[in-house]
Amino acid sequence: MKELKISKEFDIRFSEVDMMNVVWHGSYPVYFEDAREYFGIKTGLTYQSYIKNHVYAPIVEMDVKYKRPLIYGMKPRIDIIYRPTEAAKVIFDYEIHDTKDNTLMATGHTVQVFMDMNYELILQNPEFYLKWKEEMGLI
Amino acid sequence: MKELKISKEFDIRFSEVDMMNVVWHGSYPVYFEDAREYFGIKTGLTYQSYIKNHVYAPIVEMDVKYKRPLIYGMKPRIDIIYRPTEAAKVIFDYEIHDTKDNTLMATGHTVQVFMDMNYELILQNPEFYLKWKEEMGLI
Amino acid sequence: MKELKISKEFDIRFSEVDMMNVVWHGSYPVYFEDAREYFGIKTGLTYQSYIKNHVYAPIVEMDVKYKRPLIYGMKPRIDIIYRPTEAAKVIFDYEIHDTKDNTLMATGHTVQVFMDMNYELILQNPEFYLKWKEEMGLI
Amino acid sequence: MKELKISKEFDIRFSEVDMMNVVWHGSYPVYFEDAREYFGIKTGLTYQSYIKNHVYAPIVEMDVKYKRPLIYGMKPRIDIIYRPTEAAKVIFDYEIHDTKDNTLMATGHTVQVFMDMNYELILQNPEFYLKWKEEMGLI
Repeated sequence: MKELKISKEFDIRFSEVDMMNVVWHGSYPVYFEDAREYFGIKTGLTYQSYIKNHVYAPIVEMDVKYKRPLIYGMKPRIDIIYRPTEAAKVIFDYEIHDTKDNTLMATGHTVQVFMDMNYELILQNPEFYLKWKEEMGLI
Repeated sequence: MKELKISKEFDIRFSEVDMMNVVWHGSYPVYFEDAREYFGIKTGLTYQSYIKNHVYAPIVEMDVKYKRPLIYGMKPRIDIIYRPTEAAKVIFDYEIHDTKDNTLMATGHTVQVFMDMNYELILQNPEFYLKWKEEMGLI
Repeated sequence: MKELKISKEFDIRFSEVDMMNVVWHGSYPVYFEDAREYFGIKTGLTYQSYIKNHVYAPIVEMDVKYKRPLIYGMKPRIDIIYRPTEAAKVIFDYEIHDTKDNTLMATGHTVQVFMDMNYELILQNPEFYLKWKEEMGLI
Repeated sequence: MKELKISKEFDIRFSEVDMMNVVWHGSYPVYFEDAREYFGIKTGLTYQSYIKNHVYAPIVEMDVKYKRPLIYGMKPRIDIIYRPTEAAKVIFDYEIHDTKDNTLMATGHTVQVFMDMNYELILQNPEFYLKWKEEMGLI
């Protein structure tokens, strides 16, 4: 089975660091979100594709493990890995590395479910999502 | 053993919601941080008390479970619960409720460790922290 | 002519301050936005009322004058004052005071224009806006 | 006199846009701050250089003019231009362009003053700042 892993380097914003030049822990959800959107653009599972199909895919779980401090001036890379599941969910893992020597700085995990436009949970995988998985060679 | 639980109502900022008026998932770390600081002010374990004792207490783990969407106009309450441990860690659980009918909206969990001013991990509980635990009746 | 001025106390978030406990200058646009939304709720000129009438009202100008540092723990109040104009614009002034002794901490100014759903500028005042001004006794 | 203008391309974050994919107006102060820090790194007037010399340089004025909406997917460039003054101030202008066709998207202006470590205003230009201006060929 094809592993879906997309990587992207990113810049640390000065507004994201404290006086020690260490990235604030609350910035990582932003990095994950950017990675998801980038993944979507590369694979076709964009935010717009959800909306066009009349579903939301809100985050229902998010975990972050902070291994080493990200410092202003570092050039980090985020890897986003799609984790296939038969449940009506979208599951990603994340890894942030320092590109200088590939040190693992942080890991993350998010789970998204599907909701209709009235914010009611959808328990079946939406058609467009199954089609996307098929196109990606995941089912 | 005395349970250390502090509660605080808070306002949802308009800048924190999307066009559906639902709070963005990345805002919850901000709510948790505010709860920790409020806990600190009420119990004496403030950010300043760490710095004065030459330690940082960075977040090394954060989990969020989003149960129901927080909507602009709701009056949520956050409960922060201190979880005693013998390890050199500061562990909190969080619960966000809608004050209207006490519905549980989200839960969270954070783990902090101690680091010295050179960002080296401290494996022993700092003196001021043990003293604080004693004063709180936790040891 | 009736002056439209709405006041609201607000809490400073811990995530908004630096290590000196001073509010980051980039947080003031958030305070202004919250004040506009609060003004809208109190007077009927909400974000939703724009959308329902198929217009956006994006900010095209924003000025901030920072007089004195806002410090964590202060209880600030923001006053938002609607400035009537015949142009197809929504103009507000803002004043932030420390409620302790009413010291003026900051002032602000925003200008919004009207755009249709294709992001084309609307040069005439929309009907619903003229009606709102009439109801408010402004014309 | 040498003009001090530094340019930097930057990415729009997905968390910075609304459902129309338009950048939220409150993100521009972040772009300006990043530009200032980048300017500092390139010319030696960093945040750290202020702190090392026991001064803060807080923003006391900020203006933004939003000309055209920045859209997710655009590759904007920010130009930061240092405006020499004899007063004890640090003044910058900003211009954001779409790199695709160099369209001007927004302009900005910030004024910083000097304060000592007790947050008292310093009316004289600090020595290190005069020295920096000299090295830059500005006086």
